[in-house]
Amino acid sequence: MIIVMKRNYTPQQLEGVVDAIRVHGLTPHVTYGVETAIVAAVGEFHIPALDPFEILDGVETVKRISQPYKLGSRQAHPENSVFPVDGFTIGGDDIILMAGPCSVESRSQILETAHAVREAGANALRGGVFKPRTSPYAFQGLGEEGLEYLAEAREQTGMPIVVEIMSQTQLDLMLKYVDVFQVGARNMQNFNLLRALGETRKTILLKRGLSATIEELLMSAEYILAGGNKQIILCERGIRTFETATRNTTDINAIPVLKNLTHLPVVLDPSHATGDANYVLPIARAAIAAGADGLIVEVHPDPSKAVSDGKQSLKPEKFAEMVKQVKAIAEVMGRQIAPIKKPTAAGW
Amino acid sequence: MIIVMKRNYTPQQLEGVVDAIRVHGLTPHVTYGVETAIVAAVGEFHIPALDPFEILDGVETVKRISQPYKLGSRQAHPENSVFPVDGFTIGGDDIILMAGPCSVESRSQILETAHAVREAGANALRGGVFKPRTSPYAFQGLGEEGLEYLAEAREQTGMPIVVEIMSQTQLDLMLKYVDVFQVGARNMQNFNLLRALGETRKTILLKRGLSATIEELLMSAEYILAGGNKQIILCERGIRTFETATRNTTDINAIPVLKNLTHLPVVLDPSHATGDANYVLPIARAAIAAGADGLIVEVHPDPSKAVSDGKQSLKPEKFAEMVKQVKAIAEVMGRQIAPIKKPTAAGW
Amino acid sequence: MIIVMKRNYTPQQLEGVVDAIRVHGLTPHVTYGVETAIVAAVGEFHIPALDPFEILDGVETVKRISQPYKLGSRQAHPENSVFPVDGFTIGGDDIILMAGPCSVESRSQILETAHAVREAGANALRGGVFKPRTSPYAFQGLGEEGLEYLAEAREQTGMPIVVEIMSQTQLDLMLKYVDVFQVGARNMQNFNLLRALGETRKTILLKRGLSATIEELLMSAEYILAGGNKQIILCERGIRTFETATRNTTDINAIPVLKNLTHLPVVLDPSHATGDANYVLPIARAAIAAGADGLIVEVHPDPSKAVSDGKQSLKPEKFAEMVKQVKAIAEVMGRQIAPIKKPTAAGW
Amino acid sequence: MIIVMKRNYTPQQLEGVVDAIRVHGLTPHVTYGVETAIVAAVGEFHIPALDPFEILDGVETVKRISQPYKLGSRQAHPENSVFPVDGFTIGGDDIILMAGPCSVESRSQILETAHAVREAGANALRGGVFKPRTSPYAFQGLGEEGLEYLAEAREQTGMPIVVEIMSQTQLDLMLKYVDVFQVGARNMQNFNLLRALGETRKTILLKRGLSATIEELLMSAEYILAGGNKQIILCERGIRTFETATRNTTDINAIPVLKNLTHLPVVLDPSHATGDANYVLPIARAAIAAGADGLIVEVHPDPSKAVSDGKQSLKPEKFAEMVKQVKAIAEVMGRQIAPIKKPTAAGW
Repeated sequence: MIIVMKRNYTPQQLEGVVDAIRVHGLTPHVTYGVETAIVAAVGEFHIPALDPFEILDGVETVKRISQPYKLGSRQAHPENSVFPVDGFTIGGDDIILMAGPCSVESRSQILETAHAVREAGANALRGGVFKPRTSPYAFQGLGEEGLEYLAEAREQTGMPIVVEIMSQTQLDLMLKYVDVFQVGARNMQNFNLLRALGETRKTILLKRGLSATIEELLMSAEYILAGGNKQIILCERGIRTFETATRNTTDINAIPVLKNLTHLPVVLDPSHATGDANYVLPIARAAIAAGADGLIVEVHPDPSKAVSDGKQSLKPEKFAEMVKQVKAIAEVMGRQIAPIKKPTAAGW
Repeated sequence: MIIVMKRNYTPQQLEGVVDAIRVHGLTPHVTYGVETAIVAAVGEFHIPALDPFEILDGVETVKRISQPYKLGSRQAHPENSVFPVDGFTIGGDDIILMAGPCSVESRSQILETAHAVREAGANALRGGVFKPRTSPYAFQGLGEEGLEYLAEAREQTGMPIVVEIMSQTQLDLMLKYVDVFQVGARNMQNFNLLRALGETRKTILLKRGLSATIEELLMSAEYILAGGNKQIILCERGIRTFETATRNTTDINAIPVLKNLTHLPVVLDPSHATGDANYVLPIARAAIAAGADGLIVEVHPDPSKAVSDGKQSLKPEKFAEMVKQVKAIAEVMGRQIAPIKKPTAAGW
Repeated sequence: MIIVMKRNYTPQQLEGVVDAIRVHGLTPHVTYGVETAIVAAVGEFHIPALDPFEILDGVETVKRISQPYKLGSRQAHPENSVFPVDGFTIGGDDIILMAGPCSVESRSQILETAHAVREAGANALRGGVFKPRTSPYAFQGLGEEGLEYLAEAREQTGMPIVVEIMSQTQLDLMLKYVDVFQVGARNMQNFNLLRALGETRKTILLKRGLSATIEELLMSAEYILAGGNKQIILCERGIRTFETATRNTTDINAIPVLKNLTHLPVVLDPSHATGDANYVLPIARAAIAAGADGLIVEVHPDPSKAVSDGKQSLKPEKFAEMVKQVKAIAEVMGRQIAPIKKPTAAGW
Repeated sequence: MIIVMKRNYTPQQLEGVVDAIRVHGLTPHVTYGVETAIVAAVGEFHIPALDPFEILDGVETVKRISQPYKLGSRQAHPENSVFPVDGFTIGGDDIILMAGPCSVESRSQILETAHAVREAGANALRGGVFKPRTSPYAFQGLGEEGLEYLAEAREQTGMPIVVEIMSQTQLDLMLKYVDVFQVGARNMQNFNLLRALGETRKTILLKRGLSATIEELLMSAEYILAGGNKQIILCERGIRTFETATRNTTDINAIPVLKNLTHLPVVLDPSHATGDANYVLPIARAAIAAGADGLIVEVHPDPSKAVSDGKQSLKPEKFAEMVKQVKAIAEVMGRQIAPIKKPTAAGW
């Protein structure tokens, strides 16, 4: 932490700053400039808030020099985190494809989609049963009934299932069914939920909030890591900007920035990041070219009948075309789509 | 809802659109233009999603013509909602001032602050006991101990207490203590929490999310209203933009826009909206001049020792100065700061 | 400037940084921390670019500690700049009201508007004759004909005229007519234009760009100041954000922030900042309550016939109501609307 | 254009709207709904402003149904625009690589860079001689001297030169030297400059403004097209958002969106879009994977000595690595980097 004094600071004010630094267990180093003085605070400092120093008399600004996240940073863990999910390994050379409908709508819908995406090359099945909908009048999900259908789809196809959790009160029920817990954009800073997930040993797919900075995403991951759960997949899904031509703005920069700052695997959701099935394929290719470790994509057997997100859902045949294109880009990157695990005995 | 066909639409595609409209229980009206056709769908239509129509063959765009919120709109309820909280009435001519520290830190801190803000003219006491902190390593609040101190402060001063709730799991505990439940910006779309609060009959202070549109704020209020709870205060607290000179950007436009769209009372939080105690007073004055029904302000007896938000907290004497200035603006607006309720027998 | 070294920096890298600082004529001060080292560069440093240091081997980040603008800062000039325009003085206690149509459309339109706004209490007349229109197919302004009508309006009413300049090629023509040159939001970083205006001794109304930071606005003012022209009025006119309920988002925080950082007068344009005549009055009141030195407002005798910006233009009678309300707020602030200069002999 | 009436509209108000539509030479079609009426205005309508209708009594909202740009749209010109620049053809299957320093700093710097980027595979040389700098105290470019050095580099290498123009007053001078005129982000809405360039028959590289929407970019292209100049290359270079981890946010969605809406070629500038040489390669790959027709990249022989943009400039050897990677992605896309034109007799 570096504290810059105001131009007309007094010796008493500088002393006050030096004392405050010592009170926090840090060592102050003062540099006298032409017009001001700079005080560096050296030592371990775990509280990211700068407020206590910013409001001291005579202080112009306070600048943080270390990252506020620890466990998720490359400095703490220089190698990529690589960990197995039932059916694939993420964080290594393999590209992981997660696909399925926005909402589980019926048994036949999810089973049909599951078989279709698996045949096309998907590694995991996504599907929502508790839906965070902007409107209280919109479809809110099938709940446990949906989880049962998903479990049946897993049994038939061998694919692990990725399901969004909206509240820690759903955790006990979901633990019985779910392989990968998705935390949606609107819950990225639901800290109670993050803490609860940190206590589990399930893989967490943590989506970036609509207007969350990359640093805030890493701070939210830190909540889960601090609980001892190290299996986190970060997901860029588009941010909110002034541009209205697309539902969100894909922050493609976030892929190489995250790969640089953290050891956790990073995937992209081209469906939400564009909001339009017509743009999913080019953005899926771009994500892999930029270094993403995988994709999570919305697929629906008949998007015009989907109860939610129909506009951004791919038909299964278009998803198959996406897999082909992504495969070609992956090869240029020296990577490959994760091989499909053999189906279980109960499978097809 | 209006559906605009593509230039090269076919009669079959137009028929498909007309059929889809009928399937949803609406009446289609077709207008043939020079290059395209426009189909208006007339009737009651409660599902705000336009996706099912947007992806029909031959459709260029779909435009909504009615607001997606109902209960919160001025159309449904042209008069201002006016309702009593224990100690004051909000939504009428009175300006309400809520003040207190970001976090309850100790018994003496909250009692000292409570007396100070009441003497200065505050109508309600704010204070957090469960803190949504970006970092898992930061102070997370005193929990029930803090609620007890707040209750004691209420008893001594007669002011109702405003406390943030982060999760519906905290509801039972908090119901025993809290007068006004604050939903923080990060939880504005925590729909499970909103639904739970809709079941209570407590006043809810609903803060706008960091990057939530005004329409989304009203949709979140709709979740609470749909549960039968009509006592909602909306709160503008600054939005996230590209500007970094202040912590957030006060969307002062939101005040008259909300007063135009909804009958619910609207307040502003100049502490979060600026992030700097030096700018709280001018923005507090501006809010009242723009038509806000009140303010919620952070006050701390010694901001340099605050465990959170010290930089944006007013000292009690500066808060007293703010009240004086706000009072003068209120009078120009033909309003007045709500009179302080007489203290209870148990009071000072 | 402060340079933070990477954790694993080498002594050679640190030496390289120290050398680079000396090459730029600055004095390096090294502080050794637990995991890194910090180098403060002390001395005069006029080049705001940090790039040459950011890319040195072993450097983690570089942080600027002094403001990049000099002439416009409060540090250089602690007192408010107060200067006369023909007809009023700005920067002191007086509130200045500039009003008129978006575009000069005809002789009768501008004369009618001029008399109406003057009677209502305006101090200056605004009107565009070269229009920066998004579409090449839209009305582009009357050019010199419009300037002549404005000059006639000035003669009749005694009000100075405020006209937007789009290019330095228009300067010679406009110098013959114009009292205050307005630089529009889209030209805030048209540096050739700014430099040309810095050579004049006319008052410049410099509008903030749609997505310009407050610091960038001050840097653009610096271009004019560096040419020796000190008569600059800064204008907040709304910024571009994700919110679509209003045309722009009024950054009301910018008023007190600018008053803190610079000695130049600051006004607000509630017409562009909201885009809707229904919201102009509350935002005009808010601006004065926040400390603005004046307002620039669009007024049209018949907004439904305006060739541009009709939606955000006030009718003269509504402008008169605005003046009344603003006057009342100004009095609370200990200020008053600038008295109207007596008309010239040629006047009414 | 569709006009939605307020719920409580009167027959007189509806008549007023119908009349206004007729006055503009359009045909009104009224649809009566349950609570409101909708009026479609059918016919040719070239004025994109909706204001004259929005402010009519009884009108709730007005929605545009046709795009405001004509010449640049896919509807007007379904096939890709393909046109030759001296040295390559853009808009077809070839990927074009433009590279060079931010600023021309000296004869040796630009000659060295030109040979290096050509050897690595560049098709055109970029270099600025008039620099739009935020600060008046920063290096402003070499002017004509720089143009002479660029011309010499062209003679030696055979590459056409791409140079930014800041004002129409520079046009006559630059026409003697420049092959491709770059319009920078800050000048995207400098309409006088756009109009002047529309009169030339030179290729224009039009960069998107920092906070310009995709539609506004196309409207700016329309200014040039309306002058008869059809040789326009659109350039995505990052937009301004709340994220500060990178200098700008690459709007990768803009690539497929633009390819869908317009026939003009689209390139990406990964240097400005990220602001960091460490992220240029992944974003360059992503752009090609998303369908871009080329790249414009900053290259400097010694970035640590660059007078501007050093942080985001590639060293020549890193640029060569980028070309190799981009070539591999291009092949997957069924495209190739444009072959290098044979050097002229005067060449190497």
